[in-house]
Amino acid sequence: MNDNRQHYKMIDVGDKAITRRVAVASGRIVMNAETFAMVRDGTLPKGDPLRLAEVAGVLAAKKTPEIIPLCHPLGLDQVRVAFRLDAADSAVTAFCQASSSARTGVEMEALAGVNGALLTIWDLAKQVQPDLAIEGIRLLLKTGGKSGRYEHPDGIGELPEGFGS
Amino acid sequence: MNDNRQHYKMIDVGDKAITRRVAVASGRIVMNAETFAMVRDGTLPKGDPLRLAEVAGVLAAKKTPEIIPLCHPLGLDQVRVAFRLDAADSAVTAFCQASSSARTGVEMEALAGVNGALLTIWDLAKQVQPDLAIEGIRLLLKTGGKSGRYEHPDGIGELPEGFGS
Amino acid sequence: MNDNRQHYKMIDVGDKAITRRVAVASGRIVMNAETFAMVRDGTLPKGDPLRLAEVAGVLAAKKTPEIIPLCHPLGLDQVRVAFRLDAADSAVTAFCQASSSARTGVEMEALAGVNGALLTIWDLAKQVQPDLAIEGIRLLLKTGGKSGRYEHPDGIGELPEGFGS
Amino acid sequence: MNDNRQHYKMIDVGDKAITRRVAVASGRIVMNAETFAMVRDGTLPKGDPLRLAEVAGVLAAKKTPEIIPLCHPLGLDQVRVAFRLDAADSAVTAFCQASSSARTGVEMEALAGVNGALLTIWDLAKQVQPDLAIEGIRLLLKTGGKSGRYEHPDGIGELPEGFGS
Amino acid sequence: MNDNRQHYKMIDVGDKAITRRVAVASGRIVMNAETFAMVRDGTLPKGDPLRLAEVAGVLAAKKTPEIIPLCHPLGLDQVRVAFRLDAADSAVTAFCQASSSARTGVEMEALAGVNGALLTIWDLAKQVQPDLAIEGIRLLLKTGGKSGRYEHPDGIGELPEGFGS
Amino acid sequence: MNDNRQHYKMIDVGDKAITRRVAVASGRIVMNAETFAMVRDGTLPKGDPLRLAEVAGVLAAKKTPEIIPLCHPLGLDQVRVAFRLDAADSAVTAFCQASSSARTGVEMEALAGVNGALLTIWDLAKQVQPDLAIEGIRLLLKTGGKSGRYEHPDGIGELPEGFGS
Repeated sequence: MNDNRQHYKMIDVGDKAITRRVAVASGRIVMNAETFAMVRDGTLPKGDPLRLAEVAGVLAAKKTPEIIPLCHPLGLDQVRVAFRLDAADSAVTAFCQASSSARTGVEMEALAGVNGALLTIWDLAKQVQPDLAIEGIRLLLKTGGKSGRYEHPDGIGELPEGFGS
Repeated sequence: MNDNRQHYKMIDVGDKAITRRVAVASGRIVMNAETFAMVRDGTLPKGDPLRLAEVAGVLAAKKTPEIIPLCHPLGLDQVRVAFRLDAADSAVTAFCQASSSARTGVEMEALAGVNGALLTIWDLAKQVQPDLAIEGIRLLLKTGGKSGRYEHPDGIGELPEGFGS
Repeated sequence: MNDNRQHYKMIDVGDKAITRRVAVASGRIVMNAETFAMVRDGTLPKGDPLRLAEVAGVLAAKKTPEIIPLCHPLGLDQVRVAFRLDAADSAVTAFCQASSSARTGVEMEALAGVNGALLTIWDLAKQVQPDLAIEGIRLLLKTGGKSGRYEHPDGIGELPEGFGS
Repeated sequence: MNDNRQHYKMIDVGDKAITRRVAVASGRIVMNAETFAMVRDGTLPKGDPLRLAEVAGVLAAKKTPEIIPLCHPLGLDQVRVAFRLDAADSAVTAFCQASSSARTGVEMEALAGVNGALLTIWDLAKQVQPDLAIEGIRLLLKTGGKSGRYEHPDGIGELPEGFGS
Repeated sequence: MNDNRQHYKMIDVGDKAITRRVAVASGRIVMNAETFAMVRDGTLPKGDPLRLAEVAGVLAAKKTPEIIPLCHPLGLDQVRVAFRLDAADSAVTAFCQASSSARTGVEMEALAGVNGALLTIWDLAKQVQPDLAIEGIRLLLKTGGKSGRYEHPDGIGELPEGFGS
Repeated sequence: MNDNRQHYKMIDVGDKAITRRVAVASGRIVMNAETFAMVRDGTLPKGDPLRLAEVAGVLAAKKTPEIIPLCHPLGLDQVRVAFRLDAADSAVTAFCQASSSARTGVEMEALAGVNGALLTIWDLAKQVQPDLAIEGIRLLLKTGGKSGRYEHPDGIGELPEGFGS
């Protein structure tokens, strides 16, 4: 039987140029006011969630090719994770910036970092509030490669200090 | 200097009973109508995203204790991942159910599975649309353990076949 | 759209009994007489392949749920890897036995252990002979669980000391 | 005691040139006619094995330096996995091609991908037939680096579409 | 050739009783007074090392069976990491306690946690002082299993709050 | 609330030059004379510890970016692990050399390799002696990058054959 089954196409990046690639993603976790105060003040029973989430986000970004099947394993120049606290909405926004000198972009690394950070906040806050929600995960910014600079059409807002450069 | 610094508290589950634990989480990825049609029909350039995302979700759920620092490593009885296509909203909802006979719950496993699945759809769809969004990640259902059955206060809607039992 | 897509079914082992499960798998790597002598004598340029392969086989068996998507993460009681040298065929047979007190069998762990061991021999021998071959990977033996003892219909031959008990 | 024990030699690739490296490996899983029909038609109880195996093969190739102790961690340009169905022999042949712009070859990545794919088919088929066998794992093709192009002395047969280029 | 080569013996824990197992290990990193002050005050250029090291220690303990070849993969009830600052010696002592309801002890998990924590402090402090040293890694305490309670013959000193119980 | 929380700074290596980087670390495990003899002669109940530790050290060095949160994932040119036996002190010294053609140094890789090797010796020796100790982990040598060659101020002693070049 002449059957050559291949369904998934990991892109061959061998012919692409090594350029500096940067991507910034963000997303937020929404909670009630009591939970928000404990997240902000670091008084959740299991500990201060934001520092833990920062570390978890960095580690998750590095694990991207293990989690997302068609992502390329590649070296990273840097991963940064930071948070913005929105008291009015009782929400924490996580930002992750990934950078690489590579043949392919690092959007998925930035997105995986945001997800790892938000899930870690969830893990610490779930004892005091089970009906948390993660909303608005999006790619804000992407530079490098053939397609050049991309900014989210809704705007990228104000990025944390040192991000986006 | 008398200083005992410990900030994070992984819960000691040694005294908890081994009971059957089940958790169901969901979340959705929102796109435009053209992208949605390609996701639905499996015609994205890198391949059919839903089957790939199903596998990625199962693998991500198994990786939970590597990604979320204070999660306990534990055996899993099952992980299931399924999708619902919402043409009206051009959105795909991912569901993940994790089950374990364990001393601690498996909410984070279900949530990590949803995230892994949605990020994988993103990875395949990003070539045709960069302004995707992940919205509404929440814990729908949790059973087992001392606290008994939990359902999300907004209701759990209709679960995929075989989920929630 | 009423669409509940789930294609893969990781078996729910929650209702299965915890019993002692043992599985033995084997497979062999075939080479020419010169390579075989170097494998046997431990004189390959990169080092003694059999001890390295033994370690690699144990580690590969422990990685099974990361490599085989629908395998359950579970604790293992033991993994053993041993080799038999067949000078007549210029072949090395690797055996791996995995044991667990679990709700599901450990065949895939035994098979992954054999594969990890054979690939490691390949990695050390490939410098001196590129046309190696791995042949005859099979499950020899499986005990425990509802289905009881299984032996390969072609017989299991003589197992390494301490295997199969 | 003057004893400098080092037994294993991971090759120092620091002086090698970065060139495009490609490797193709293959191997097959042999079953009976009934199992083959279920594999071909995707009607095994746990789901369609070939797509799952394709994903598993890609992920296994990326895990190579974790599984094979003396392999170098490196970035990959691409991994492809495809299958050929041989009804006459009730066998499925898996092919894996790995590519990298690196200082060292990617044979082991291609071989690990083949193994991961074949083991995943095994995992889905073992419920209906325990006496499966993996046979004929070999390196078909290797290009790049100082030694240039290598083809298996028995010939490489017809490769899946897009492989070998 | 009748040759059954098996060199390494992962202990078969299948016949051992599931009991509560606890182990506490410690070790210290020694630096100069200037570095010590920056570690204590969290003013190193890359950030506050102690919280980061606490997280890294927990994650390293969970990775034990991946790092130490003959260790059993097992579920953990808890991992705790804490530090004591010794200004007189310009040293930070890391403590890690691992607990499990398992068939085998968790000393290696506690030791791996100490190592992961100390290496992470090193990583943050190395910019300001390259001649750091890790000293005195030892097992302080072990309970559970057939052999009962073990305490280090030199005494276990004062443990961090909540450790050793 | 205007709050940009980022506490940890993974260094951005995007502007650094790719140069050959080498690092050598060492550390020792101290035991009593009886244990030392069994380590030296390879007669511990679980097997010959030095070869196993050599493999474990290589694998641990490759895992560095997974264990140490702010380390960069990067390709390695080589990892070497060797041992020196000091009968007078009943101690085994482990050396690990890591090399890379990268934008950042590989000290942490060398240190992680030493730790993985020493912990593996511990795992095999702990059955016969629980009061082992790891002492004197330090960075002996570092070359490459902007800061040039570094040698430990106490001297680097005699390195194993092939190290330090």
